[in-house]
Amino acid sequence: MTDQELDLSPYAVRTDLAVEAREMAGPPDTPIPGVWQEASKNGGITVTRMHIQSQEGARAIGKMPGHYVTLEVPELRRGDTDLQDRVATTFAKEFEAFLSRIGVGPKASIFVVGLGNWNVTPDALGPLVVENIMVTRQYFELMPDQVGPGYRSVSAVAPGVLGTTGIESSDIVQGIVETAKPDLVIAVDALAARSLERVNTTIQIADTGIHPGSGIGNKRKGLTKDILGVPCIAIGVPTVLYASTIVNNTMDMVFEHMKQHTPNTDPLFGVFGSMKENERLQLVKEVLEPLGHDLLVTPKEIDKFIEDIANVIASGLNAALHEAVDTDNVAAYTH
Amino acid sequence: MTDQELDLSPYAVRTDLAVEAREMAGPPDTPIPGVWQEASKNGGITVTRMHIQSQEGARAIGKMPGHYVTLEVPELRRGDTDLQDRVATTFAKEFEAFLSRIGVGPKASIFVVGLGNWNVTPDALGPLVVENIMVTRQYFELMPDQVGPGYRSVSAVAPGVLGTTGIESSDIVQGIVETAKPDLVIAVDALAARSLERVNTTIQIADTGIHPGSGIGNKRKGLTKDILGVPCIAIGVPTVLYASTIVNNTMDMVFEHMKQHTPNTDPLFGVFGSMKENERLQLVKEVLEPLGHDLLVTPKEIDKFIEDIANVIASGLNAALHEAVDTDNVAAYTH
Amino acid sequence: MTDQELDLSPYAVRTDLAVEAREMAGPPDTPIPGVWQEASKNGGITVTRMHIQSQEGARAIGKMPGHYVTLEVPELRRGDTDLQDRVATTFAKEFEAFLSRIGVGPKASIFVVGLGNWNVTPDALGPLVVENIMVTRQYFELMPDQVGPGYRSVSAVAPGVLGTTGIESSDIVQGIVETAKPDLVIAVDALAARSLERVNTTIQIADTGIHPGSGIGNKRKGLTKDILGVPCIAIGVPTVLYASTIVNNTMDMVFEHMKQHTPNTDPLFGVFGSMKENERLQLVKEVLEPLGHDLLVTPKEIDKFIEDIANVIASGLNAALHEAVDTDNVAAYTH
Amino acid sequence: MTDQELDLSPYAVRTDLAVEAREMAGPPDTPIPGVWQEASKNGGITVTRMHIQSQEGARAIGKMPGHYVTLEVPELRRGDTDLQDRVATTFAKEFEAFLSRIGVGPKASIFVVGLGNWNVTPDALGPLVVENIMVTRQYFELMPDQVGPGYRSVSAVAPGVLGTTGIESSDIVQGIVETAKPDLVIAVDALAARSLERVNTTIQIADTGIHPGSGIGNKRKGLTKDILGVPCIAIGVPTVLYASTIVNNTMDMVFEHMKQHTPNTDPLFGVFGSMKENERLQLVKEVLEPLGHDLLVTPKEIDKFIEDIANVIASGLNAALHEAVDTDNVAAYTH
Repeated sequence: MTDQELDLSPYAVRTDLAVEAREMAGPPDTPIPGVWQEASKNGGITVTRMHIQSQEGARAIGKMPGHYVTLEVPELRRGDTDLQDRVATTFAKEFEAFLSRIGVGPKASIFVVGLGNWNVTPDALGPLVVENIMVTRQYFELMPDQVGPGYRSVSAVAPGVLGTTGIESSDIVQGIVETAKPDLVIAVDALAARSLERVNTTIQIADTGIHPGSGIGNKRKGLTKDILGVPCIAIGVPTVLYASTIVNNTMDMVFEHMKQHTPNTDPLFGVFGSMKENERLQLVKEVLEPLGHDLLVTPKEIDKFIEDIANVIASGLNAALHEAVDTDNVAAYTH
Repeated sequence: MTDQELDLSPYAVRTDLAVEAREMAGPPDTPIPGVWQEASKNGGITVTRMHIQSQEGARAIGKMPGHYVTLEVPELRRGDTDLQDRVATTFAKEFEAFLSRIGVGPKASIFVVGLGNWNVTPDALGPLVVENIMVTRQYFELMPDQVGPGYRSVSAVAPGVLGTTGIESSDIVQGIVETAKPDLVIAVDALAARSLERVNTTIQIADTGIHPGSGIGNKRKGLTKDILGVPCIAIGVPTVLYASTIVNNTMDMVFEHMKQHTPNTDPLFGVFGSMKENERLQLVKEVLEPLGHDLLVTPKEIDKFIEDIANVIASGLNAALHEAVDTDNVAAYTH
Repeated sequence: MTDQELDLSPYAVRTDLAVEAREMAGPPDTPIPGVWQEASKNGGITVTRMHIQSQEGARAIGKMPGHYVTLEVPELRRGDTDLQDRVATTFAKEFEAFLSRIGVGPKASIFVVGLGNWNVTPDALGPLVVENIMVTRQYFELMPDQVGPGYRSVSAVAPGVLGTTGIESSDIVQGIVETAKPDLVIAVDALAARSLERVNTTIQIADTGIHPGSGIGNKRKGLTKDILGVPCIAIGVPTVLYASTIVNNTMDMVFEHMKQHTPNTDPLFGVFGSMKENERLQLVKEVLEPLGHDLLVTPKEIDKFIEDIANVIASGLNAALHEAVDTDNVAAYTH
Repeated sequence: MTDQELDLSPYAVRTDLAVEAREMAGPPDTPIPGVWQEASKNGGITVTRMHIQSQEGARAIGKMPGHYVTLEVPELRRGDTDLQDRVATTFAKEFEAFLSRIGVGPKASIFVVGLGNWNVTPDALGPLVVENIMVTRQYFELMPDQVGPGYRSVSAVAPGVLGTTGIESSDIVQGIVETAKPDLVIAVDALAARSLERVNTTIQIADTGIHPGSGIGNKRKGLTKDILGVPCIAIGVPTVLYASTIVNNTMDMVFEHMKQHTPNTDPLFGVFGSMKENERLQLVKEVLEPLGHDLLVTPKEIDKFIEDIANVIASGLNAALHEAVDTDNVAAYTH
């Protein structure tokens, strides 16, 4: 199915995360036809597996049909290395299961694409992951007989961004795919969050590829099976959010907080309080944008956060892609 | 006067910037006894010179007595190199005038201290400035007769932060001052802003030194004449702000915006709208803090912003401190 | 002509620089048939223009037929910014002339490839140049009518190295060329020098592309018109050299030095002194290699040298490729 | 004993490493009065413990009286992480033993000084070690009752170099020692090697402090007990060497190699071959220096080598200084 067949444009702006889209579509205990979901929680890590099975389900929650897995780790920003190791291990196991669920075999060759910009820290997730991927394709090309068991062909490139290369990263990836001929593309990208709590605490895996308008940069072309000729799994982490998002997000929390103390809330907030969330966000944007104040912001400690989560993803991928790499000690393969 | 003689603790939390403190103390056209002020605007750069002349003035606006100069350049984040050069030149001229106003002669030896943390981009302002300072003290020590005219003795150190050194930066600076014996200390530090528009657009010069609680880090001891034995000029730039500040700041703007469209505002915002600014900020903090969501945030493009403004300050200082460095082409001395 | 038609393999190991190959082929004042050459010297910069016009000439000096321009600037390592600016201006003028000499028009679209490895400083020349190239292709693609006069379509990518991507950089470039369709490729690469004096002081421009075995890395496939379908200009700078090269190079100088003091040299050096240069180099390699001591080394100050020479090349290219960029002040466009 | 009491100036130029000085002083099996030595080899790591017990011993080998421990790991440049972990563990055990041998108790507070220049990779060893030291002094100062058992007070600063601060690093350290009052200083520094094989493969620990003229930079003042008032342990790693050293070093190997094949060597090398090593080195320097070619060079892969060896030292120190940090898994505490 192409983007054209299912017009998601009105939804596309809402969120890059399937779990958020699901929340916005209705209460969690009311099933949505065409949307299968299960969640498990263990040691501070919540894993949600979702399958949007039909166009009906896709329309209901505003996300492309496909498989989605989300890891939510609220404490991930604390810098706890034990937790980071457990997240990497969980990521590895989920990713392995994800590959087999969508039919990617243990011999399939893989090309990891790190989208984003080296020089903009919160957008450097993709390049940082690529830097720590254990690449093996060269051995399969040059001396296939000597590659030990338990490895597959893996390659990895950070194609840069339009503003620094002059070429859409989608075009660069497409060109490389044509010459390197992988069976699958994995694209790692930084996303804009819809709430402060998600920034650098959530990782999403999806088999829908990268679509125009997602991620931090302005991508005019996506990375999808239609464009690349091979399937594309997207790994995304929210690393920035709009000032207006913080405001709107916080106002919800303030109203909720005040409601708990005063049942009759209407006079408390007046017209502003009774606005729908979308209207209020629109108003906030109307005020901030003309002044150039609706900035994308990121936590002060972003350098450390990005490094940590890039290591989690890279070591998780190394363990998931190569059987010979042990999922119980994945961190040893990155630095 | 020491910190003890004038208790500014209730004010200290409000703002590190004298121009903001002045705004909060009353309308700009109503004079405040003991506070002299003048402002000029030229080519997108507003320069405000303030002199808090008495304890009465200090109490009125909640800042230490002393001289303050502020450069406000709303467009500084645009990456316009011409504007950056003009800001550097303006900074150099203002700094030169500032030195002579407070009685620092052309031969006084100077020690530039870059406070903050290399590894936390929005806190790296001080270390980045130090990296581009033209140091000359070694020539004055080793071959004083051969130093050309138009230079003075300048040294520069980035002492690191408590969390990475185990020693208060104030103690490190004090130790170096005792052995290097400069006539004046200039301390460069990143600050927390009270509004999004100030982030990386405002530079403050003050002869009051650095006081506990100012800047981004948690400084328990300051850098003042009392502690160091020599005067200390502080140069500060807001580079981060709290999520709660963004919310409160934006709510002001939203209310202002709505008032302009509907004269009768009370029912519009209810109790929330009629709260005093401080109360509302308190409420927002009460909601965000328990969740760990009152993060310090910084613009996504902070890497570039910090580099640009550090270059402005370093090249401005080089021109102001060394007569032989031309104020009209200050940028050539940094990279 | 392809590589296959002219077997240069016995020569290929000798040197990547045409001026060195020419020196090794015979005294400078004895013309070599099929090799045209002229040199000019100005302000510490020697420019040598060479045209290897025939296979006879190519065989005589062991380099592919084609145009070569070399800038030799012995003082370039001194960190003199005035000299750097003059080298950038000279480079820009020579490159512009080179383009017109080989028939590349002012509208030809250009793709700059930065070969090498970000994380290995002396091999980071290509990526550093790419970072400072003024890319414009995106404007020609998205809003061709609005591009001002004096610019051409320029794009730039650093494809990484085989060891970190798993894909030959030649394959990556080929894929990008197929989708981005430039008229010309410019490949920037770090080279191994044959003498200490050349390290970071020499820049070569050649229209022969990149051939297997050149540069620092082990390139199995080249970047040539045969492979890419469009012409490829190579820009190379020697940034490393073998320990054995230093030894052999220095022994020459020592023998020369001693000869000047004692006419009868044979008993001075014995068998070792009377060896041919190649034999002696072979002996030195035989001794060092088994111990793993024939390291590639680079000057201690390589971080600064690489940054400086990358800026020279990037600002020179920006001025040469875009008429609107002034060759007299090229440095302003890089940082 | 001060530097003045024992004039080592004629020896000082020879080598910073005690094991090299010992080699130069005579055959290993001939005891030198006043010099005690033992060596052990295990898993590719040779540990040499030396005690220069008297002025007689000091004069004989040209090094200050004191304790020296050297780790030689010829394979350390191979990037083998297992070996790196074993070196870190060995370093930790040797350093712990060293501390108790020279009478430093488990409660002694320690100040780690990282000498050298961040921006010059082969000189960045000290700053990189400091970045990974587990500092605890702040807890002992602010909440001494809450510090867990098995930790001591550790602080760490990288003071920069004279060329970028304008202040001798010795003066900066002295000033900090006066305010921070540690019981012991540990100074980490990069050294110039006397042979290619030592570069980034050898670590020396010595209780003699840092003396003028040692290390890479030009240090006019040292870091000794005389100057600091507290003892100073120096940790040094050779990371660069002179081009002339490579030549001389290799010529030895070449002559040795040729002798093994031809018993009658005199006619093989002539006068040059029969020169004493010092004379030959002098001749090589005479030839290279006027041309500016006696560069300090470093291996091409220096970025990785320095990072690896800095991690070895930092994790080794963390384990040696804090009992609570396990010597068997020291690497987990650095990144």
